Amino acid sequence: MLDKTGVTEILARQVVATRWDAIPPPVRHQAKRSLINFFAVALAGCRTRPIEIALGVLGQFSGAAQASVIGRSERLDAPSTAFVNAACANVDDFCDTHVATVIHPTAPVAAALLAFADIRPVSGIDLLLALVLGNEAQARIGLAISPSHYNRGWHITSSCGVFGAAAGSGRLASLSERQMVWALGLAATQSAGLCECLGTPAKSVSVGNAARNGLLSALLAEKGFDGPPEPLAGVQGFYHALAEKPDLSRVVDGWGESWEIMATSYKPYPCGFVIHPVLDCVLDWRRENPDTKVTGIVVRGNPLLGVRADRPNISTGREAQVSVQHAVAAALVFGKAGLDQFTDSCVREPEVLKLRSKVEVLRDESFPTIAAAVEITTADGRTHELAQTAARGSDVNPLSDRELEDKLRAAAAGWNWRYDATPLIDAIWGVDESTDVSGLASLTVPA
Amino acid sequence: MLDKTGVTEILARQVVATRWDAIPPPVRHQAKRSLINFFAVALAGCRTRPIEIALGVLGQFSGAAQASVIGRSERLDAPSTAFVNAACANVDDFCDTHVATVIHPTAPVAAALLAFADIRPVSGIDLLLALVLGNEAQARIGLAISPSHYNRGWHITSSCGVFGAAAGSGRLASLSERQMVWALGLAATQSAGLCECLGTPAKSVSVGNAARNGLLSALLAEKGFDGPPEPLAGVQGFYHALAEKPDLSRVVDGWGESWEIMATSYKPYPCGFVIHPVLDCVLDWRRENPDTKVTGIVVRGNPLLGVRADRPNISTGREAQVSVQHAVAAALVFGKAGLDQFTDSCVREPEVLKLRSKVEVLRDESFPTIAAAVEITTADGRTHELAQTAARGSDVNPLSDRELEDKLRAAAAGWNWRYDATPLIDAIWGVDESTDVSGLASLTVPA
Repeated sequence: MLDKTGVTEILARQVVATRWDAIPPPVRHQAKRSLINFFAVALAGCRTRPIEIALGVLGQFSGAAQASVIGRSERLDAPSTAFVNAACANVDDFCDTHVATVIHPTAPVAAALLAFADIRPVSGIDLLLALVLGNEAQARIGLAISPSHYNRGWHITSSCGVFGAAAGSGRLASLSERQMVWALGLAATQSAGLCECLGTPAKSVSVGNAARNGLLSALLAEKGFDGPPEPLAGVQGFYHALAEKPDLSRVVDGWGESWEIMATSYKPYPCGFVIHPVLDCVLDWRRENPDTKVTGIVVRGNPLLGVRADRPNISTGREAQVSVQHAVAAALVFGKAGLDQFTDSCVREPEVLKLRSKVEVLRDESFPTIAAAVEITTADGRTHELAQTAARGSDVNPLSDRELEDKLRAAAAGWNWRYDATPLIDAIWGVDESTDVSGLASLTVPA
Repeated sequence: MLDKTGVTEILARQVVATRWDAIPPPVRHQAKRSLINFFAVALAGCRTRPIEIALGVLGQFSGAAQASVIGRSERLDAPSTAFVNAACANVDDFCDTHVATVIHPTAPVAAALLAFADIRPVSGIDLLLALVLGNEAQARIGLAISPSHYNRGWHITSSCGVFGAAAGSGRLASLSERQMVWALGLAATQSAGLCECLGTPAKSVSVGNAARNGLLSALLAEKGFDGPPEPLAGVQGFYHALAEKPDLSRVVDGWGESWEIMATSYKPYPCGFVIHPVLDCVLDWRRENPDTKVTGIVVRGNPLLGVRADRPNISTGREAQVSVQHAVAAALVFGKAGLDQFTDSCVREPEVLKLRSKVEVLRDESFPTIAAAVEITTADGRTHELAQTAARGSDVNPLSDRELEDKLRAAAAGWNWRYDATPLIDAIWGVDESTDVSGLASLTVPA
């Protein structure tokens, strides 16, 4: 039975002591898939307005041009780069998701590790191992307080991401167990981020900080900047302040028996996950019926679909991400549900607007969140019954490697249609052969 | 009656709209006293080990040498300087205190404002006004949730300091009301800091971040980086996540009728406030009885004195700060209770060690925390009855301007005995005549 002291120390020991041999091949492969998805979503986000502003402000204060900002020619100091790249990867709600916690795990961790690799040599194996371990630490710290922590208003990707970035960076820095406890303590006292900011650029600040501050936590701890012995479970520590009744066994029990990164799902569409099974139905049908005029749509799904996404009247691309009416209409009009279908201008498109008003949403307890049924009525009076039992990208119906590659290619093309994503994709699949991964991010820098 | 929406907007309006004319002369003078105290404690802290490490790590990533680190030759970019100077000022537990919230108010706010003044012209009047307003915003945000927020484990100087730094910096940047709401939102989503870290260097990270992140919140908001409309009281906002049942009226009601900076106390001794009335007694007695041999000491005070500071057995300078036995013994041996009396080496001093064991502590409900009685028995068999009803530095017995000057002089001398503090002291008392306050911090830079 775990008591109040010791959990941080046990976690630190596990992060410090786990060897590459202990990581099974499917987990290693999943880490690469997370990197493919990370670069895809970062390339999708790297030209957005919040990133432009952040680069402008942080650029005035940046140190040496040490590290590569994904998809951009700017180079910043390593902590600022970690901030910007994590923000890029999360800005669009197109991230990977650890479903049990709702953590978007790779943005804070990978951004910190890649920035680290720009200041010190990091091999591909070290990168993958640190990514798996950082991900594991943050997921477990979050699992102990899910769902109450998120429900209380904490943006868990930020508040737990800082631990993942610290643990992963600390592993790359070869911290001792004691230093790792300090790094986790420095992360704990920087844990922040509010769900109130979702849907606004402010969200990106806490996600960026998670990467930046996690990286700095590791670098400070390495130099002897110490902290308390039990930052997680101490009487005035992280769990006391930010959570109710943590289940501490979730933090450390069964370490290495399975890996939380395997419970990560990757989104095929840049919108709320509850909308995804609906889009699967509609896009499949449209592919086979490209010119058929639609006169009515009835969507049936889990009540959460109604709660989160029953929004017939919207005016911005950001709102479009949580409107099933918009998603269905845009998918029918364009035959796609990519980044271009969730923009302000697509929301105003007359044909999309007209179809939006014809979508009815029904709530049905018998549907899990990953399932949906859609009934499409066409101008010829026929009705078409469609169904999806497990959305593409969900844990039971994961995107294939090829689909992830396509996601990256599409994101890169949206940013720069002449960009050839193949060298980056090849470098990621082959990263365990690399002795220096600093080239990964630089492969995205415009010529 | 305040509802859940609007409190941030009202606060923002008050910060943006309050004019210098509205600040009464005693409040203006108190702001200068806070600056004297700020420089004193920052000079006391600027050579400590956490600061050395932080400078080493952050120095690798610093941008242009824009701003002056207090008491040091290093120059860093403005946000990094804000971080280091706030950490310097808080590292020793020698800070000013807003008693009702236990916020140490000036470290995060002044550090942000002085860094701002190193990148854009700031007049003395603007500095004082921004200091009063930033202080007011952070104190009021904290008052609404005191004492439950601190009791829950939040290091309130950090978690509320970021709002003070954002509000003050935002005022210097002449933010609009709307931008000020954004700046407060960016501050809210960066609010962090755990009491678990008190007594370790990790404390300095959240205090430093409060200054740095508050400054950046203002600079991002200025460029249009927006956030939610009600970050404080929104359903997933700051108060929901970090507090229970805020009294929102404390945030905005009666603005301008009185100023919280007037409720700031400044410490004469670098140790726990509960020990202060005891030290007043002992030091006064020792001054009049310099050579009398002491054989026993009985201290009587509020029960909190016993709870917090009844520690006969200690081994470090940091523990000495909360040991009334050590404080009394060192004051009797050296006739002083300055920074040198709370070091590791003073703790090991044989004469101090011997006297420490002769101090008895009695708890008495009839004493307020600012009062104490001391009975000293001397080798000649006589007993001396001493009493202090209101400790020096408490709100009812404030340090005089001259005593604050002496505190600054002593701190500066500890750091560099050849340093002449007079130009800095004169510059602070005359700061409302200055058109450019960037010279203040640079007056502390070693030649």
